[in-house]
Amino acid sequence: MVSRARLISVIGAGRAEPEVLQAARQCGRLLARAGFGVVCGGLGGVMSAAAQGCAEEGGLTLGILPGSDPAQANPYIQVVVPTGMGQARNLLVVMAGLGALAISGGAGTLSEIGHALKMGRPVVGLGSWEIEGVTPAATPEEAVGLLLARLPA
Amino acid sequence: MVSRARLISVIGAGRAEPEVLQAARQCGRLLARAGFGVVCGGLGGVMSAAAQGCAEEGGLTLGILPGSDPAQANPYIQVVVPTGMGQARNLLVVMAGLGALAISGGAGTLSEIGHALKMGRPVVGLGSWEIEGVTPAATPEEAVGLLLARLPA
Amino acid sequence: MVSRARLISVIGAGRAEPEVLQAARQCGRLLARAGFGVVCGGLGGVMSAAAQGCAEEGGLTLGILPGSDPAQANPYIQVVVPTGMGQARNLLVVMAGLGALAISGGAGTLSEIGHALKMGRPVVGLGSWEIEGVTPAATPEEAVGLLLARLPA
Amino acid sequence: MVSRARLISVIGAGRAEPEVLQAARQCGRLLARAGFGVVCGGLGGVMSAAAQGCAEEGGLTLGILPGSDPAQANPYIQVVVPTGMGQARNLLVVMAGLGALAISGGAGTLSEIGHALKMGRPVVGLGSWEIEGVTPAATPEEAVGLLLARLPA
Repeated sequence: MVSRARLISVIGAGRAEPEVLQAARQCGRLLARAGFGVVCGGLGGVMSAAAQGCAEEGGLTLGILPGSDPAQANPYIQVVVPTGMGQARNLLVVMAGLGALAISGGAGTLSEIGHALKMGRPVVGLGSWEIEGVTPAATPEEAVGLLLARLPA
Repeated sequence: MVSRARLISVIGAGRAEPEVLQAARQCGRLLARAGFGVVCGGLGGVMSAAAQGCAEEGGLTLGILPGSDPAQANPYIQVVVPTGMGQARNLLVVMAGLGALAISGGAGTLSEIGHALKMGRPVVGLGSWEIEGVTPAATPEEAVGLLLARLPA
Repeated sequence: MVSRARLISVIGAGRAEPEVLQAARQCGRLLARAGFGVVCGGLGGVMSAAAQGCAEEGGLTLGILPGSDPAQANPYIQVVVPTGMGQARNLLVVMAGLGALAISGGAGTLSEIGHALKMGRPVVGLGSWEIEGVTPAATPEEAVGLLLARLPA
Repeated sequence: MVSRARLISVIGAGRAEPEVLQAARQCGRLLARAGFGVVCGGLGGVMSAAAQGCAEEGGLTLGILPGSDPAQANPYIQVVVPTGMGQARNLLVVMAGLGALAISGGAGTLSEIGHALKMGRPVVGLGSWEIEGVTPAATPEEAVGLLLARLPA
């Protein structure tokens, strides 16, 4: 028996404003301190910042890439899963996590929110889509707190 | 050279109220009369009703199933693509259409809207998610009209 | 109720010698005459030739593309399913058919043979991989005959 | 920057004879001692044995499941990627590794060999399919040695 990584999906855009990136990095740090790893889409922006924060605190980082070239992963990803499946990898990103943290984000993030809700995963949004099923949070601390409180026991 | 089918993605829930199903069937009819086929998730509810309406008017119906058993397709599907990929087939449903018509629908439909918007497909909603990027319509006639008007030339 | 298309998967390389292409086209013709459509990977070579033969005889042609651009389909495909999933579409090509006809082919075809055998689909090879589970045939006539005889009732 | 896991795909059947499982476990151990982790399909048989051996020697184990339930992973998997994509996950298993080690195995393994060869990954077989492109080995030591020697620099 080995210790199984407990992961949270952090979803958000590949490009974002500095304050959004700062929030994502802080979310990654908080998740790692709480004993969780981060799974994300493996590219830049929110994905990179969250992975960076998580890795800084010793958390495991898993990146599930849309392309087939592992070199596209950001430098904070420890375990790379290239897929060559394009957007279909969005589903895998949310399936690999116990719950999803949406940070800002556009249409790709919206598809991930839809997939997560369909699977019954808790979803917390930080400056993200304000739609039914997504619990809004105002700060990284609140976002991580709300999400972890809603995880299945 | 053969004539290539021009398809519209009709997305919506596998179970729905009678008036929603009636609207879906009418959308299918209108699409077929305008020379389009319907691609959908191949199962029941909105998917079946839209396929039924389309087939009634001689339009082509394509069903992309989440499971691997073609027998799960509703009886109005002419061309069945089983996938065994579960929710990942949602992406394929919207990718195979020139635009998407969302009729009512829940989280699965939301994931499809997200994928469609990410791909730049026009999306019209009929009693569906009221979010940025989705053009709302009040009737099947308006929905089909708005969508066809927004298709790339 | 509509009439459901009965499809045979024709798998093979995107580039092939003239005699291989001629055989693929003949297989497409024979399948259409027997009342079957052709599902293939939608690109060139064996895929295009088989679709051409099938379309010449009025059979339905379904192309499941690795990319997301429907314009990549060869001109003999009536129904295009772009996937953006790269090689993962290989599985879909064999899943959409009642059985698989492998014509020449390299590593991609090998992956499709593996998937088809795993699903219990009959597989006939025409100048293709000579491995356990693949019934070899010497001519298009023999190949189509052997495959159709092995389809589930 | 974090240290990126270097993974080898170990592919083989979910059920196997004791001597095959022993060989798989030994391969896992040897890979871990050489500094590599193991990515596999996450289930039982060869997948479980290889993960066990790898974990015993402190190597990282990644399991990419066909189903959507992470609880289906064998107890030696540290990082679980459920996919809900069925056989389509076979492609991901080989894509996540630098090379593939095929141990015994049936049709599913054959599909993985095909995908690996298509991607240009080195493939070594231990009591597996004897086909063009697969380098045969007689022992776990030889198999791991041959595979590591063929990895891209």
